Amino acid sequence: MILRDDCAALDEADEISDLRAEFRLNSGEIYLDGNSLGPVTHAASRRVNEVINVEWAKGLVRSWNAAGWMAEPTTLGDRLAPLIGAQPGEVLVADTLTFFLAKLIGGALDLRADRHVVLTDVANFHSDIYIVEAMARRAGRPMVVKAIDRSALEKELSDDVALVMLTHVDFRTGEMLDMKGITKQVHDAGALMLWDFAHSAGAVELDVTGCDVDFAAGCGYKYLNGGPGAPAFLYVRERWQGVLENPLPGWLGHARPFNFELTYEPAQGMQAFVTSSPSVIALAALGGALEVWEHATMAQVRAKSLALTDMFITLVEDRLPGVFEVVTPREHHKRGSQVALRHAEGYGIIQALIERGVIGDFRDPDICRFGFAPLYVRYVDVYDAVERIVEVMTSEMYRDERFSQRKPVT
Amino acid sequence: MILRDDCAALDEADEISDLRAEFRLNSGEIYLDGNSLGPVTHAASRRVNEVINVEWAKGLVRSWNAAGWMAEPTTLGDRLAPLIGAQPGEVLVADTLTFFLAKLIGGALDLRADRHVVLTDVANFHSDIYIVEAMARRAGRPMVVKAIDRSALEKELSDDVALVMLTHVDFRTGEMLDMKGITKQVHDAGALMLWDFAHSAGAVELDVTGCDVDFAAGCGYKYLNGGPGAPAFLYVRERWQGVLENPLPGWLGHARPFNFELTYEPAQGMQAFVTSSPSVIALAALGGALEVWEHATMAQVRAKSLALTDMFITLVEDRLPGVFEVVTPREHHKRGSQVALRHAEGYGIIQALIERGVIGDFRDPDICRFGFAPLYVRYVDVYDAVERIVEVMTSEMYRDERFSQRKPVT
Repeated sequence: MILRDDCAALDEADEISDLRAEFRLNSGEIYLDGNSLGPVTHAASRRVNEVINVEWAKGLVRSWNAAGWMAEPTTLGDRLAPLIGAQPGEVLVADTLTFFLAKLIGGALDLRADRHVVLTDVANFHSDIYIVEAMARRAGRPMVVKAIDRSALEKELSDDVALVMLTHVDFRTGEMLDMKGITKQVHDAGALMLWDFAHSAGAVELDVTGCDVDFAAGCGYKYLNGGPGAPAFLYVRERWQGVLENPLPGWLGHARPFNFELTYEPAQGMQAFVTSSPSVIALAALGGALEVWEHATMAQVRAKSLALTDMFITLVEDRLPGVFEVVTPREHHKRGSQVALRHAEGYGIIQALIERGVIGDFRDPDICRFGFAPLYVRYVDVYDAVERIVEVMTSEMYRDERFSQRKPVT
Repeated sequence: MILRDDCAALDEADEISDLRAEFRLNSGEIYLDGNSLGPVTHAASRRVNEVINVEWAKGLVRSWNAAGWMAEPTTLGDRLAPLIGAQPGEVLVADTLTFFLAKLIGGALDLRADRHVVLTDVANFHSDIYIVEAMARRAGRPMVVKAIDRSALEKELSDDVALVMLTHVDFRTGEMLDMKGITKQVHDAGALMLWDFAHSAGAVELDVTGCDVDFAAGCGYKYLNGGPGAPAFLYVRERWQGVLENPLPGWLGHARPFNFELTYEPAQGMQAFVTSSPSVIALAALGGALEVWEHATMAQVRAKSLALTDMFITLVEDRLPGVFEVVTPREHHKRGSQVALRHAEGYGIIQALIERGVIGDFRDPDICRFGFAPLYVRYVDVYDAVERIVEVMTSEMYRDERFSQRKPVT
């Protein structure tokens, strides 16, 4: 049986426990929703102030060069690259995840012009499915998008398949897919592989280089703590740069943007995927938030994530046997950094927990999600969260209509 | 002859002169580059702080609903609508100008599927040309994009033309086009009309309703002062809503985003054009910056803009006869809110002026641009700016190689 003192001892021994001080957290609240929106870091707040009060206020238009604004998408990309196992010059930060997916899908379908099928996961996040269908409709040839059960991937792969797009960690269940094995399967079929890292970056160790990934994109506002609607990141393997075309080009991706040439000629490297002037204030928040990663390795983060989620699963099953179905895989190699618990009354449970200061979220029809961000979630938080879940369940307060009645949710 | 005292008297009499106090400006500097990047407003800075330190820090993920984040694109759109003469429910704020153009172009070409020509202006901003060509390539049928001399528009209009895309105020010359007349011409030919308001919004009076404009988009970082790379705005006339399809759809544009449905079904109204989670911090800066517009009418702003640019042209021609070619039209109905002066050594002149505290900018090959934002530019600033231009020209300091030697410019 796990005691609170055991948890406190684990926090004491935790090599990265001091990083929690870099975050602004509400006292008394246990934040287990960093898989939806990461909290404010002191550095993010400081960097935004600096950009507004110094770079913008004093430097004005001169700061595009003098403060390095123009280069921020690639500068931040290089800083983010190690978190996904990429090389410098392979990552860009800008736009949103969906726009980056549009760019990758549009470009990739051009590269496999003799193939007409795109495979994705029927359980994928819905924006991913909408954008792949939209870009397939504009591929310039008839395309078929198949949203399949991912277990059927091997069967569906053929020499008709141009592109496979999968989300590495399932947003509902928290299941992590075998990036290396699947990428190899896809390549063996002659197709290109695009990974969505929305629930992976900053949550699990990623090795795009070792896994031979072609393309990837992810968002900046979950485990990377870049703020609500933060810019996203884009990965294009070095071998595809100069080959993959940006289907949504803009002047800042031109080889000579200030020559104002009528004909588009892409810049070298990742700069070719820049469309518009970067959103400098939004990038400042993400840039600040990335500073904390200089003080932790992804190996440390991953080890703690697994320990936290193991402990959460054990405590929930010990204290509330049979109450929830643990949807997230037990096997470490199949688990992201969240735990999903299934319960028919999950909606009310999450609302009641929020009132009790445990912030998780709910996904239809019956999934309670709890994200464990190792940079600021402590072992005692896991213990205390389960205590409060026990209180909510044994009191049946979640059945009170102020919790169980549906409101719009995020 | 205009004296500095005359200018001071005009400032004294100016009904909107007190709005200058809402801006943070460098003392001793005359900022005539608000047509590239508007300055910081106190309100923008305050709103960003509030979003970070209260809404994000305390509310965390709950703020998507509790603080109205989810609705910000339409909330800000409704606030911005009066500046362009639109109705509530016709404007959205999000993304970037180029992404909004992509959405409009893609959707518009679908609406005129029996036509294969797009007309645009060879003098258009280059991103506009790149994106219209990119979207035309993905229209699902062979399209021809013609970048024409805009004086040839009438001749080029035919029943082959699906869409005409023009920028309302020329980014180089500051010439303003006849929105009403051209829109009617285009409609008479059975084509759709898309206006780029990058250099118009907040600079000149706009009446999209009265001019029967179909679609428009503009950026938030010039005369709207939303900050570097601020979100853009999108206008879709009410009659096209529910008809025009968003070619880059995302979950937040779905009719029921939290049902996570596999099939995309657009939301009602402008919400259908939302793709991704809005960039809340960037929107906060723009939202703050829009507050100042509650204290000035566009008629007041336009009247002062014309007075400032008239005065600038007069002073330049009086003090430096024959030195510059005034490229910007004299006729008020053809002038935006900037004055472009042509000079073969314009690059060095602008650099020298920046050192002397007059911030304008240069556009290849020989255009010196000076933007006059009536909310913070005073009549005495016009007088003083011309004084410094006279000093720079008579001293020939602009020929010093520290000014004349080319560096990357914005």
